Amino acid sequence: MRQFVVIAHQAPTTPDFSLDDLAGDGGRLDLLCRCVNAGLLLSHGIRDARVHLVLGEQTTVRFDGRTARGLHPDERSTAARIRDALAARPDAIGHQPATVAPGVDLYRMGLAETLEAVAEDAGGPVCRLHEEGTPIVEIDPPRAPAFILSDHRDLTADEEAALGDHVDYRLRLGPEAIHADHAIAVTHNWLDTAGFRTY
Amino acid sequence: MRQFVVIAHQAPTTPDFSLDDLAGDGGRLDLLCRCVNAGLLLSHGIRDARVHLVLGEQTTVRFDGRTARGLHPDERSTAARIRDALAARPDAIGHQPATVAPGVDLYRMGLAETLEAVAEDAGGPVCRLHEEGTPIVEIDPPRAPAFILSDHRDLTADEEAALGDHVDYRLRLGPEAIHADHAIAVTHNWLDTAGFRTY
Repeated sequence: MRQFVVIAHQAPTTPDFSLDDLAGDGGRLDLLCRCVNAGLLLSHGIRDARVHLVLGEQTTVRFDGRTARGLHPDERSTAARIRDALAARPDAIGHQPATVAPGVDLYRMGLAETLEAVAEDAGGPVCRLHEEGTPIVEIDPPRAPAFILSDHRDLTADEEAALGDHVDYRLRLGPEAIHADHAIAVTHNWLDTAGFRTY
Repeated sequence: MRQFVVIAHQAPTTPDFSLDDLAGDGGRLDLLCRCVNAGLLLSHGIRDARVHLVLGEQTTVRFDGRTARGLHPDERSTAARIRDALAARPDAIGHQPATVAPGVDLYRMGLAETLEAVAEDAGGPVCRLHEEGTPIVEIDPPRAPAFILSDHRDLTADEEAALGDHVDYRLRLGPEAIHADHAIAVTHNWLDTAGFRTY
C-alpha cells in the first residue's frame, strides 16, 4: 500500500469553518482536499492507498482508499468529510478513531504518533519529498512506500525533530517546487509506470 | 510555451451557476479549475504556460500564465474568474476576446478554432493525451508542446473529427487512467525533468 502523510500548518482542528472559504477561513484546507483526491482517486476508481492529514497536535484524519466509498474529487465535498470528522472528535478515545464515513477516520494522534503508525504499517521505506532530496530517476522505485509532504509551509524545527529516525530517505521529484497535490500525482505516476498496482 | 487544451462536456457557458456546487450545478467545473491550477501554478510562482478551457461551441476561456496575476489554487476562486469571464461574453466580438482580469480572456471560439490558434502558436508538437498513445518514456520530451485533454468524459465523434490534422501524436503518461489535472501535473514534471523551463 502507498501512503501519504501531509503535514498541515494552518488547518482547522475544530469544525467551525466555512466550506465557502477553504483557502482562507479553512486554513488552506483546499490544498489538503486536493491531496486526498490526488492520493486516492483514479479516473474511474479508488486506489488502494492512504492519505493521512496531520492537522494538529492531537488530530489526524485518515482517508483509506481500501474502504472509502463515494469520495468525490471536488474540494468542497472532501472538506465536508473533514468537517464531519472534526465534529466527531469526542468519539475518538485513546488509539480508537472516530469513524464518520467508510474509510474516513479521525485519530487523536499528532505527527510523531502518526509517523510511528505509518512506519509500522508501511511495508516499504518512508520517504520524505524534499527539494534537496535524491532525484527519483536515480533510485529504484520502492514497493509500498510512505511519503511525507508538507502543505504550503516548510516544516518547523519541532516537526523536523519528530521525523527523526522515521525517514529512510529524501526524494526529489523534479527541478521545480510544486504543490503537494501535484507532487502526489507525480509520485503515483512514477510508481505506476514501474509496474506497481494500487487496486 | 507549454499549452493545455481541456475539452469540457458539461460545463456552463453562462454565469448562472453556483460556486457552492461546482461538481454538480457547475458541470464539473471543479475539475476544470484544478486543470488551470495544475497547468499554471508552481509552489511559489506562475508558469509560462497557457490553459484553454473549451466550454462550448463558441466559448473558450484562456488562462495565460505569462500575464495572469493573483491566481489562487483553490477551485472556488478560479471558478469565480470563469464566471466573470462568462458574464463578460457579450464583450467578445469576432476574434477579439473579453478580458476580465490580467491573463484571463474569453474567446468566442469553439474547439476547432481554438485548436487552430493553438497549433499556430505552439512552436512545438500538438499532443493528445490518450490511454492508447505512445508511452512518454519512449519518446524525446518535446519543446513547447501543446497537449489536448478531455474532462471526465470521452470525446464525441464530432470532437474527434475536429482534432483532425491538428494532432501530431498521441501520448500515454502511464498505465493508469488518471484525472486530467493529475495528467497535467505529470506532464509538467516530465518536461521539467527534461530540463525545459516554464518561467
